[in-house]
Amino acid sequence: MADIVQILTTNPLARQLGVPQPTDLRRGRELPSGPVVLATAGGPGSLVRQTLDLLGINPLDALVDTPATRVTETDEEGRTREVPPSYPSRIGAIVLDATAVTTVEDLEQVRAVLRPALRSLEASGRVVVVGLEPDTAGAPTAVASQQALQGITRTVGKELRKGATANLVLVDLLTATPTTAADLASTLSFLLEGRSAYVSGEILHVGHSGDAAAPAPARRPFEGQIVVVTGAGRGIGAAIAETFARDGAMVVAVDVAAGGEGLSKVANRIGGHALQLDITAPDTGSRIAGHVAQRFGEAARIHTVVHNAGITRDKLLVNTDEERWASVLEVNLTAQIRINAVLLERSLPGGLDDGGRIVTVSSTTGLAGNAGQASYAASKAGLLGLVRAMGADPRLAERGITVNAVAPGVIATEMWGKVPLVKRELGQRMNSLQQAGRPVDVAEAIAHLADPATAAVTGQVLRVEGQLMIGA
Amino acid sequence: MADIVQILTTNPLARQLGVPQPTDLRRGRELPSGPVVLATAGGPGSLVRQTLDLLGINPLDALVDTPATRVTETDEEGRTREVPPSYPSRIGAIVLDATAVTTVEDLEQVRAVLRPALRSLEASGRVVVVGLEPDTAGAPTAVASQQALQGITRTVGKELRKGATANLVLVDLLTATPTTAADLASTLSFLLEGRSAYVSGEILHVGHSGDAAAPAPARRPFEGQIVVVTGAGRGIGAAIAETFARDGAMVVAVDVAAGGEGLSKVANRIGGHALQLDITAPDTGSRIAGHVAQRFGEAARIHTVVHNAGITRDKLLVNTDEERWASVLEVNLTAQIRINAVLLERSLPGGLDDGGRIVTVSSTTGLAGNAGQASYAASKAGLLGLVRAMGADPRLAERGITVNAVAPGVIATEMWGKVPLVKRELGQRMNSLQQAGRPVDVAEAIAHLADPATAAVTGQVLRVEGQLMIGA
Repeated sequence: MADIVQILTTNPLARQLGVPQPTDLRRGRELPSGPVVLATAGGPGSLVRQTLDLLGINPLDALVDTPATRVTETDEEGRTREVPPSYPSRIGAIVLDATAVTTVEDLEQVRAVLRPALRSLEASGRVVVVGLEPDTAGAPTAVASQQALQGITRTVGKELRKGATANLVLVDLLTATPTTAADLASTLSFLLEGRSAYVSGEILHVGHSGDAAAPAPARRPFEGQIVVVTGAGRGIGAAIAETFARDGAMVVAVDVAAGGEGLSKVANRIGGHALQLDITAPDTGSRIAGHVAQRFGEAARIHTVVHNAGITRDKLLVNTDEERWASVLEVNLTAQIRINAVLLERSLPGGLDDGGRIVTVSSTTGLAGNAGQASYAASKAGLLGLVRAMGADPRLAERGITVNAVAPGVIATEMWGKVPLVKRELGQRMNSLQQAGRPVDVAEAIAHLADPATAAVTGQVLRVEGQLMIGA
Repeated sequence: MADIVQILTTNPLARQLGVPQPTDLRRGRELPSGPVVLATAGGPGSLVRQTLDLLGINPLDALVDTPATRVTETDEEGRTREVPPSYPSRIGAIVLDATAVTTVEDLEQVRAVLRPALRSLEASGRVVVVGLEPDTAGAPTAVASQQALQGITRTVGKELRKGATANLVLVDLLTATPTTAADLASTLSFLLEGRSAYVSGEILHVGHSGDAAAPAPARRPFEGQIVVVTGAGRGIGAAIAETFARDGAMVVAVDVAAGGEGLSKVANRIGGHALQLDITAPDTGSRIAGHVAQRFGEAARIHTVVHNAGITRDKLLVNTDEERWASVLEVNLTAQIRINAVLLERSLPGGLDDGGRIVTVSSTTGLAGNAGQASYAASKAGLLGLVRAMGADPRLAERGITVNAVAPGVIATEMWGKVPLVKRELGQRMNSLQQAGRPVDVAEAIAHLADPATAAVTGQVLRVEGQLMIGA
């Protein structure tokens, strides 16, 4: 697949044909190069400032566009016009604390700080708006004004160019368990860094974690932790295994026999363990736990399970028989339910640790459906319900266990490379970043959700799709 | 606009060019011509059968695709294959009661009844799946299985051709206030009839109404009722006024002076009242109520207010100043909040009646954002928050007042006719029905939400977009 991406992005012919060349996205654990600007709307708000403090980021104050701050510019032909105030140089990000927005008039302050910032945002820059979960905002006008932030942020995501992204983080401040800076730090760090390269137009919810032991964001958050990844033999699964290994994890890479060769290669490359098994076997959960207990000791427990293995058996529903239907639901949904049930047994040696993480790979098809993929859509939608229900389970919350999903859009895998060229080219341009994502983008989102510091995010789905236009 | 629709749908050149010709949709208060098939999945389920009874529809039992029911077909060359059992003739709709689905295995029954039905569905036929609001379904597996219905229904919507639609209705059965057949009847009637022509891939929530006085669905539900429509001078607003008049309402058509000529034409055509005013004036609410009290008598009260008036002032956010920003939010959001507050005063002569309806026109842009429309997206997103908050207000529920929104996608209005041809053509094909909707489609959805029989739907947004692919 890499070659195709390369052809489309660097082939001189593509340029001559006028194909817009997508920006090479900033990736990895890199902050933007320019300064981070902090703004507020609706009132002072301290949550975001405190969170930036925790992350060691010293922000610039935002410029505000008003008639009084505007400056007169004269063009070559001597015509004058009023333009917003300018930052002295490119900025890396604007983080807007809009949690105090309660009226429609307050939204003017959102416009007034975004306008100058968007003019000065660097390539792969970031717009992060922090608002309230609207339904907790109180009076209908406050709910409406908070909900308006979604329309604004998603529009900004569609207006940005050169790899810049815009996302909205919803927090709870007016509830019994308000979000703290410690809760928010991991998500804000993810959104500012290159790890979130292919996440835009998203709405992320950060609640509050009762888990006082949750650490601050770290560069190698999985140091010494055991992480199990299914379907790890190739594509996105291999990238997931590699990303966790980069971040310090001891990875148990699981795949079926057919994926065997790729599996051992991946495991060798990252110094992890290859475990060959069929996830639909009834004893898979106990075999995984048994492997962990055997290799890492009776006291060892799993920190994260990533359910990445999945299959497709595409057919129109009118042509789908019971076998084809059942096989997809079995692999993509039922097997996970069965494995989770086993690994969540607290007494099981090698099971999931308290403070552990379950992350599953859903799909935008689970949200929007897709012609020819009824069984796949059913399974991937089912996963969204599953994580929401498990995320709401107080028994898991008590143990500090979170359960989340990612929903990848168009990702440049080997599988995607088999889609006919024109369809593929159209498909990968139909998002705000005007390019396909890479497997590592999905892996980074999963690693973020699995991060010990991401303790206040559960029951959520994080789309990794560059603000795909093909939606629900 | 009508001419453009005609050219694209009937021009011989368009056919020669291979432009797929969209189906002329069944519209109005017409049931499908073929029989309605009733199916169940996960268990017997009585809600849907009772609801069809209420509507006077006597359903056929569904055929079920299993290895035992399949028949052997021989083609011209003597090759045989197994095909699902066939209905004796085209069917008009399949209504699937999936409320008893609790396991992944139960979903096989969904496949088994949909497969034969989809093969026999008539043009403009209907697939209506009735499931539980997933979060009320209980165990995580049940939540997942109910959520899977969303992936299936949306996929079916994308696979259907010839104007057929697929929608999912979520009901509450396991809560303290379960949905009854009387609650569901109005929504099921809407979805089966041509009124829902341009609604597909939607997920509609029907709760329970405490309003025992809510009537059964009727052909002229607004007989003798007063309905106020803002922005009624043209386009969608005119269609709304006409649809309510068709259904028996006495319409007060409101528009600004600039819309004056169109306004009086519309009012004359439907035998309604023209009321010329600027909705942003501080006294608009009391002027509307005053007009109603004066023309219809001191005891008269409004049954439905439709907030349709809205403006756009498109610019990239980097070029948007405070005036442009404020004007859009003022007209599209703040004015409505102000008018609602006045009309909801119970003591005000000519105000909103108990059992009344507020319906507002949002937009898919409020859900997904749109480049160049930050202010518009903010206002239309705000409306979604507003109706959700008002729908959750127990004081309104006590009075039997519901508050809902519609979100139109691409609708063939005069305004849409000004979009450049290629962009327009692309835009209106990018949905499952492969055509733009008509103003009447939006009007029908609004009239449905305003229907006295639609008492158990509040705080919702109903998209009228033919399952638009450009999504959130």
